Amino acid sequence: FSTGAGDTVRATLFPGDGIGPEIAESVKQVFNVAGVPIEWEEHYVGTEVDPRTESFLTWESLESVRKNKVGLKGPMATPIGKGHRSLNLTLRKELGLYANVRPCNSLPGYKTRYDDVNLVTIRENTEGEYSGLEHQVVRGVVESLKIITRQASLRVAEYAFHYAKANGRERVSAIHKANIMRKTDGLFLKCCREVAEKYPEIQYEEVIIDNCCMTLVKNPGLFDVLVMPNLYGDIISDLCAGLIGGLGLTPSCNIGEGGICLAEAVHGSAPDIAGKNLANPTALMLSAVMMLRHLEFNDKADRIHNAILQTISEGKYRTADLGGKASTSEFTNAVCDHI
Amino acid sequence: FSTGAGDTVRATLFPGDGIGPEIAESVKQVFNVAGVPIEWEEHYVGTEVDPRTESFLTWESLESVRKNKVGLKGPMATPIGKGHRSLNLTLRKELGLYANVRPCNSLPGYKTRYDDVNLVTIRENTEGEYSGLEHQVVRGVVESLKIITRQASLRVAEYAFHYAKANGRERVSAIHKANIMRKTDGLFLKCCREVAEKYPEIQYEEVIIDNCCMTLVKNPGLFDVLVMPNLYGDIISDLCAGLIGGLGLTPSCNIGEGGICLAEAVHGSAPDIAGKNLANPTALMLSAVMMLRHLEFNDKADRIHNAILQTISEGKYRTADLGGKASTSEFTNAVCDHI
Ligand SMILES: CC(C)[C@H](C(=O)O)[C@@H](O)C(=O)O
Ligand SMILES: CC(C)[C@H](C(=O)O)[C@@H](O)C(=O)O
Repeated sequence: FSTGAGDTVRATLFPGDGIGPEIAESVKQVFNVAGVPIEWEEHYVGTEVDPRTESFLTWESLESVRKNKVGLKGPMATPIGKGHRSLNLTLRKELGLYANVRPCNSLPGYKTRYDDVNLVTIRENTEGEYSGLEHQVVRGVVESLKIITRQASLRVAEYAFHYAKANGRERVSAIHKANIMRKTDGLFLKCCREVAEKYPEIQYEEVIIDNCCMTLVKNPGLFDVLVMPNLYGDIISDLCAGLIGGLGLTPSCNIGEGGICLAEAVHGSAPDIAGKNLANPTALMLSAVMMLRHLEFNDKADRIHNAILQTISEGKYRTADLGGKASTSEFTNAVCDHI
Repeated sequence: FSTGAGDTVRATLFPGDGIGPEIAESVKQVFNVAGVPIEWEEHYVGTEVDPRTESFLTWESLESVRKNKVGLKGPMATPIGKGHRSLNLTLRKELGLYANVRPCNSLPGYKTRYDDVNLVTIRENTEGEYSGLEHQVVRGVVESLKIITRQASLRVAEYAFHYAKANGRERVSAIHKANIMRKTDGLFLKCCREVAEKYPEIQYEEVIIDNCCMTLVKNPGLFDVLVMPNLYGDIISDLCAGLIGGLGLTPSCNIGEGGICLAEAVHGSAPDIAGKNLANPTALMLSAVMMLRHLEFNDKADRIHNAILQTISEGKYRTADLGGKASTSEFTNAVCDHI
């Protein structure tokens, strides 16, 4: 990682749109109080399309992540209109963000219908149904291509098993619909099996996506690490977020080419409450904690993580989305007090 | 409908494999006790591939449904091996079963994490990701085609709005990922919108599939009728079944070309308990009730439906899958006693 002045590490920060800047402030405040030796390089979503990225993200902002190899991203709404690419898809493509990782744990103290969720979804993030290849065959008949490659499947499977081993997880479940899409999902499974061979200490199973979703809502405690193609990952990671209370409580990080780690709050930019000091910074804070673990700042990560969990558990300072009355800054101050 | 001797209606019965014959017996017993004027034409899954259907289903058995226009189907396991098609897919294809309909209601007396589920999933059942069109582009690169047609999309959308209106439902939600698959899912949405115009009394909304799944696990009470392309329907209908306790409690029926109605228990054939008088016949019974409503035998349908719900509510006779000790016949007798 690039180091800044002294022993600090340089990390890119995309505060993003809407509530993004407010919740990014919360993270900066918490990091300061915890004494995290990070120097932020902030980059904002531009107001004009950068021809080099075909999106509102500038080339310089992407270069910053490429150089620092580590970053944190708030929500980015893709502005409506023609002539540019979605900001999220641009990031995935330009930075080769091949795996989206979302640990999903029931939060002690925040009650949902489930109290035993403790799983991690790992989503292939570059191909599959997101190929963008679609066309009209004849009037009234359109087709989309789902592309599965050996290279991308092996890469995400490797990451999933590596993650399972490094994090003391016991089992990897590959999610698929290979009984129908025998060739595409079949190739995905074949790659998972190849990688599984190399990790005899990690159990491996294959679960059909419809059955997986039914089991997740009945008994999510049965799952550990889940790895899957892009669209299934899109669906299942949000389903799992729902089990623990929603996207406002779910951290995420993206692993990219060359060892990039871009942590990301996956909720929306909530323009209706932007600038009102009402947003819940939890998902961005928890994502920032993932970034710290990636940097092996484990003590800082633990301290901040515990402070967030304690603040939510105590329930005194909760933002409106969790049924409370606290402002963003009240919640943030409470987290800081717990550090 | 074809009428048999006297005023009876002829209906095709596919008992299916594994536990199929036992639970089909239960339905026959319940229909007898309730005095349902149905004469069954039973057809079994063959032991050899019929070249006319390329599957273990015989042409005659399909002809029976085409003629009677109404039928009931137990689970059919697709035997492993080459040279034949899946039995379920053969039925869908040969009978043009374009809509799979699954009412999903919390069962009073059977406790899950949810008590307010009252929705219906309507799945397009013939195209989309199930096209079967797949190939290897170059070594290590495979693609599947998802096909969406105007004709099939309009047909299932029409059915969804027709169903909503006929059943006093208020809203139809079209589930999609058109922000990514702009052309395919975009065409599906366009067709839904066209049909929605003709039903101003029914509310219409569009929900992205990832958000839909998150909302379903947080607050399923927000949904009414959901209509969607094939794979999303496969996933979401099983997710919804999970909310109320699983496939053993969820009825389903398929609507086909020419007004065919083939009711179907969508759970597996459970070979491990087959022939042991242990299977839960609820899903097949509830599917048979859907068939009766389709035939407008509403009094009989209500009586049987209430008898099933009462038996489950009382909890005295529950099969092992619901944590009880009753045998298939004990449960069935209890339902008969309530009729
Ligand atoms: C906004 C959208 C393109 C995106 C996706 O489908 O990947 C979102 O749902 C996500 O999961 O990050
Ligand atoms: C068995 C399988 C082919 C089938 C499907 O995917 O449609 C099943 O999951 C279903 O929902 O009926």
